[in-house]
Amino acid sequence: MYETCLSFWDTLSDAQKESIHREAELIEVPVGARNPFGKEKNYQMLAVIKGRIRVYMLAEDGKEVTFYRMVPDSLCSFMLKDCLSEDGQIGIMLQAESNSEILCIPVQLHEALLTESAAYLKEQMESERDCCRKITGVVNDILSKRLDSRIAKLLLEESSFCGTNQLKITHEEIACHLGSAREVVTRILKDLQKRQMLILHRGAVVITDREKLKKLI
Amino acid sequence: MYETCLSFWDTLSDAQKESIHREAELIEVPVGARNPFGKEKNYQMLAVIKGRIRVYMLAEDGKEVTFYRMVPDSLCSFMLKDCLSEDGQIGIMLQAESNSEILCIPVQLHEALLTESAAYLKEQMESERDCCRKITGVVNDILSKRLDSRIAKLLLEESSFCGTNQLKITHEEIACHLGSAREVVTRILKDLQKRQMLILHRGAVVITDREKLKKLI
Repeated sequence: MYETCLSFWDTLSDAQKESIHREAELIEVPVGARNPFGKEKNYQMLAVIKGRIRVYMLAEDGKEVTFYRMVPDSLCSFMLKDCLSEDGQIGIMLQAESNSEILCIPVQLHEALLTESAAYLKEQMESERDCCRKITGVVNDILSKRLDSRIAKLLLEESSFCGTNQLKITHEEIACHLGSAREVVTRILKDLQKRQMLILHRGAVVITDREKLKKLI
Repeated sequence: MYETCLSFWDTLSDAQKESIHREAELIEVPVGARNPFGKEKNYQMLAVIKGRIRVYMLAEDGKEVTFYRMVPDSLCSFMLKDCLSEDGQIGIMLQAESNSEILCIPVQLHEALLTESAAYLKEQMESERDCCRKITGVVNDILSKRLDSRIAKLLLEESSFCGTNQLKITHEEIACHLGSAREVVTRILKDLQKRQMLILHRGAVVITDREKLKKLI
């Protein structure tokens, strides 16, 4: 299992592999569950083994915005507790979008690996840059894109994740991804339906014209 | 100089200190200058020695939003080129808010120090977490705060940086910090003037009631 999900596995020494076997924890997260770790847990590096995990921000007023999704083979390096704001109210949170398994590397092991393994250090730096790029991409979209463009992007992303144009997603869920309000999302979706890009069903959206949707982005 | 600006200096070996003397670059940045590094330069860790540096994002449509300000004794760890979006259009940028000096640690030296110095590694991890906290704080404010609240917060921050209630700042500059439009900022500032929290002058804002402003945040 480690071989396939940790790109640097083969470069590790036997002692390092043994530490990961001993100290890393494999957590199963059922679909829909949020923040699978207890508050006392200090994990620094997460690797999704199975499923899909949404990394999102919960803002002070309860609004959510999705920063990115972790799929197998993607590493994510951060300490959940450290991403809290000074008053502890804003958090980076995780939610399983399907039944998932996450390999969690605790802080101490993480710090040891950083100094002992150049490949691990490289992986961690790349994962942080990637995370930074994705978050700034979201800030960019919030600042400079219209909501119809952001909805189009989300639906196409969802479609590529699921490999189908028939998306099981509610207006409420779309609003949560984008930090918007359900009413506004519903209005725009109805407009996109009128413009023959998609068809709305109860709890589902069917993309009928991908090219038209792409042009909105 | 290094002793005062690099908290980990005393923990370094003589050889490490010597590498920093030899490989780190000290750059002078005149007030107003943006992105003082050539594109070919790959710095990974920046330390502000003198002055104040604004770290901001330039969005696709030209809007800006300030993520945070670096003042002396604050480290900032990121690679400017790596924070560009995939299409290279969104960038994390720097701008000197006063005549500044920045100590720039190149990638190779940075990576060597990370593996050789536990104190340097700790400093780098803390700086990244701090950066992440600040950016998510900005996203939170954009998502869930009214613009009058964000203006109040910015003016009070500016005032604490400058140690005065008489701020030399234009409506345009306030808009740039907040990713907003000048017209909207002007309207809100006039409203705050009416509500006797500040007085507007040409190119300046004078805070007259800090407590009232604080209550807006």
